[in-house]
Amino acid sequence: MRELYAGVDVGGQHIKIGLLTREGEIVDETSIDTDLETPVLKSMGVLAETLKQFASRQKGCCLKGVGVGMAGQVNVSKGMYYSGPNFPGWVNVPVVQELKKHLDLPVILENDANVAALGEHEYGAGKGIDNMIAVTLGTGVGCGIILEGHLYRGSNDSAGEFGHNTIDYEGRMCVCGRKGCVEAYVGARGILRTLKEILADGQDSVFKTMDLSKIKPRQINEAANQGDKVALEVFRKTGYFLGLAIADIANLLNVQRVVVGGGVANAGEKLLGPTLETARKECLSVPSQVLNIVPAKLGNTAGLAGAAYLAMELVHPKEKGMMPR
Amino acid sequence: MRELYAGVDVGGQHIKIGLLTREGEIVDETSIDTDLETPVLKSMGVLAETLKQFASRQKGCCLKGVGVGMAGQVNVSKGMYYSGPNFPGWVNVPVVQELKKHLDLPVILENDANVAALGEHEYGAGKGIDNMIAVTLGTGVGCGIILEGHLYRGSNDSAGEFGHNTIDYEGRMCVCGRKGCVEAYVGARGILRTLKEILADGQDSVFKTMDLSKIKPRQINEAANQGDKVALEVFRKTGYFLGLAIADIANLLNVQRVVVGGGVANAGEKLLGPTLETARKECLSVPSQVLNIVPAKLGNTAGLAGAAYLAMELVHPKEKGMMPR
Repeated sequence: MRELYAGVDVGGQHIKIGLLTREGEIVDETSIDTDLETPVLKSMGVLAETLKQFASRQKGCCLKGVGVGMAGQVNVSKGMYYSGPNFPGWVNVPVVQELKKHLDLPVILENDANVAALGEHEYGAGKGIDNMIAVTLGTGVGCGIILEGHLYRGSNDSAGEFGHNTIDYEGRMCVCGRKGCVEAYVGARGILRTLKEILADGQDSVFKTMDLSKIKPRQINEAANQGDKVALEVFRKTGYFLGLAIADIANLLNVQRVVVGGGVANAGEKLLGPTLETARKECLSVPSQVLNIVPAKLGNTAGLAGAAYLAMELVHPKEKGMMPR
Repeated sequence: MRELYAGVDVGGQHIKIGLLTREGEIVDETSIDTDLETPVLKSMGVLAETLKQFASRQKGCCLKGVGVGMAGQVNVSKGMYYSGPNFPGWVNVPVVQELKKHLDLPVILENDANVAALGEHEYGAGKGIDNMIAVTLGTGVGCGIILEGHLYRGSNDSAGEFGHNTIDYEGRMCVCGRKGCVEAYVGARGILRTLKEILADGQDSVFKTMDLSKIKPRQINEAANQGDKVALEVFRKTGYFLGLAIADIANLLNVQRVVVGGGVANAGEKLLGPTLETARKECLSVPSQVLNIVPAKLGNTAGLAGAAYLAMELVHPKEKGMMPR
């Protein structure tokens, strides 16, 4: 029987499910809607049943473990989801315990940014890299940290809050209540603010007469691709801010690679060019020698791939490494 | 025969040498002058001979290994000292190779901030703590990182440059050429600048009529102990800046402890009180729950204790852990 591992990426709208071989090949994928109306424990039961049926369609295969990634605060050793902005009402959910009731399989829960980082590290743009971070740019700024080849979780599973590192302690207000966080510059709201600041200088742009409150980074990217100078400047500046923040990571953690994914990263070289230039210039010379910044490879399957990888690691522990405590 | 390990802390003026048992007890200490006039390889020979003679005075003991800490850029696996501001002319020195020629013992070279962090972790204020950093406040700001119980070195042995993390990308100029580094606020020069800024507000102080160019943090500490309000405000503000920077570390690495040492840390609670208050307030709630900031315990023996510990680890490798590559 071929071993399969399920990776589950629980998002605010959809739950993505993938079945991976031990080699990391995704043999099948599906998704169900995230039902926030139903009591959460019932939703966990539905997820477990879906998983079982979905895996049973793979002939000659045997589901050996399940990894789950969720946005928000988790406790890995307890398999507990504490809370997070995407799932109002889902508080202190014993995710692992509930899924195990239905599945009778090893199950592991992890934070979404951490599984995305693991996915990129094991199968994507961070393959073979010992020390790296994977940054996901979207509404918020997610980050998972891989050090010496292993996921680094920190003292109570909250490591990786790169989005709330300061680049200017008297700077822009962040949603976290603090000033000058990276997220206030390179998250979707931050990018919109940069657009407004540049427009205030009076330059001509397609955005000049638009209602800016509904603009998404995707539209700024499209305008930039059409040659809109303001839009191009938005990405140059966003890259500059991101580069400043990455320079700090390079100084502190001396990582070789920063993998940048998420919707905003679709801007590609317009964003990542200035990011790398700034980061290399602003960090010290020794960490600068080894630093590289690359786009993510796995897109929106990074999370489920990383979650499935964690399940494999649970079933087949490595001799060395940072296992869940 | 009782096993002894030598820890060597090579400073710009003196070379401190300590002999430690496997339990971490310092059985004897000595120091020699750092001779920057003599060719460096000859100096290494003198150090080796001093070590041999010094260890031979311990009856019934046997020197099993030597650890060396030096300020500046090192390559641990090559045992090579590249360069650093304290030792003009000492460039690309094969420290381990030279000492081994004379000593015929396992020798390991490491950065001074890293050995100080190891010393505090193994024998001092970080004992039993899995995730911590040790910050040394002086002219510069040193930092060593211990993650999951082991020294974290980074991709080319330069991790821990906390002093050059940004708190304000448009802020004070740092000696590294970048703006707004932690060191520009909490290093000795930064503290002096804060003093000048506060004095410019016109408050009364013993420093009002003094030549400020020669003031040291020690004198500001003495004045604060005498109740000088400006001096007290200098430490409050320095603590605030340090706390902001530590909040970033807590967000990113979710460390349980920050050990603060070095001359400036002698200010004690006047400095560390505001540091802890700011750090806990400014970091996110989950990392804040586990964060603590404490003064260093080992004083100026942290470096040699950590260096000796590295030598022990070299002779008796742990099964798990981050060994020198």
